[in-house]
Amino acid sequence: MDKHLKEIRVGGELVYDGKFLKVQKDQVALPDGQHTAREYIRHPGAVVILPVLDDGSVLMERQFRYPLDQVFIEFPAGKIDPGEDPLACAKRELEEETGYTAKDWQFVSVIHNAIAYSDEHLDLYLARGLKAGAAKLDEGEFLETFTATIDELLDWVRSGKITDVKTVIGVFWLDKLRSGAWKLD
Amino acid sequence: MDKHLKEIRVGGELVYDGKFLKVQKDQVALPDGQHTAREYIRHPGAVVILPVLDDGSVLMERQFRYPLDQVFIEFPAGKIDPGEDPLACAKRELEEETGYTAKDWQFVSVIHNAIAYSDEHLDLYLARGLKAGAAKLDEGEFLETFTATIDELLDWVRSGKITDVKTVIGVFWLDKLRSGAWKLD
Repeated sequence: MDKHLKEIRVGGELVYDGKFLKVQKDQVALPDGQHTAREYIRHPGAVVILPVLDDGSVLMERQFRYPLDQVFIEFPAGKIDPGEDPLACAKRELEEETGYTAKDWQFVSVIHNAIAYSDEHLDLYLARGLKAGAAKLDEGEFLETFTATIDELLDWVRSGKITDVKTVIGVFWLDKLRSGAWKLD
Repeated sequence: MDKHLKEIRVGGELVYDGKFLKVQKDQVALPDGQHTAREYIRHPGAVVILPVLDDGSVLMERQFRYPLDQVFIEFPAGKIDPGEDPLACAKRELEEETGYTAKDWQFVSVIHNAIAYSDEHLDLYLARGLKAGAAKLDEGEFLETFTATIDELLDWVRSGKITDVKTVIGVFWLDKLRSGAWKLD
């Protein structure tokens, strides 16, 4: 199945081994038998937390993102450590970045954010039963937290104030879950 | 404003100049004055087309994405050429990949898909008044097209059959536009 679309690896190597980014360059056979190169980022995967407070408002972050020289409104999120369970990562990142812990966790969805040039995936989790505590930001990590209603977040997606994909998608999911149109298992 | 979050560039260079990927490594000053490195992909930006046929169904693609070794359901999309107008790029990519041309084009939204490590943005356009023609795929480009209803696409987002972020977000937008809850200017 899908043999007319599939590409087969014939070789390759890590061509850039940075502090943060790893670039892999593989030689592949195309469906027509010709060979070409494919370059992509090797990424361990990440988690995104949709933290809904007891009053229905949502815990959000503002964080400067250097590649775009801009502060983004985002859900809490972070990279999965080697061997780490994604849900354990979500609990760790929520507490580190916001200080909050949550009683109820539910898996929402997986998304792929750069399928042309990265193997990154992001697991989205809904977190409820939140309790405030003290944040423990990583060295060199600067962000601020705030709360917003789902209606505000939807308006910011519509108007372009929220453009980060994990956040846009999380807001749409919260809208579907709040209306009861979609349910989590 | 946001001085407590912002990072300032103090130097940097292109550290990997590949066929497809360009990796920039900059030295930056953090809000607390300490220095660190930021690595990211330099990307020219891309466009995504949401092509809605006269009967309300949507023109989609299936394409193999090597980094994830998987066929993805996607909207037509492509990278902006140097100096190219994004709308012109959208018209070009729709015709090259699917053969279709469209009479009516409307800007929908901009999204950022990898804010931690890429400066990529994607401009989403709604295309209507579609007319079929012959596709002109690039050398080494393999994909197939099909049509689906918005309800099918929503169901595939919910169930995890669609995970590509530009496609997830485009489907949510089509849902909001169809219901009349959101309007384009």
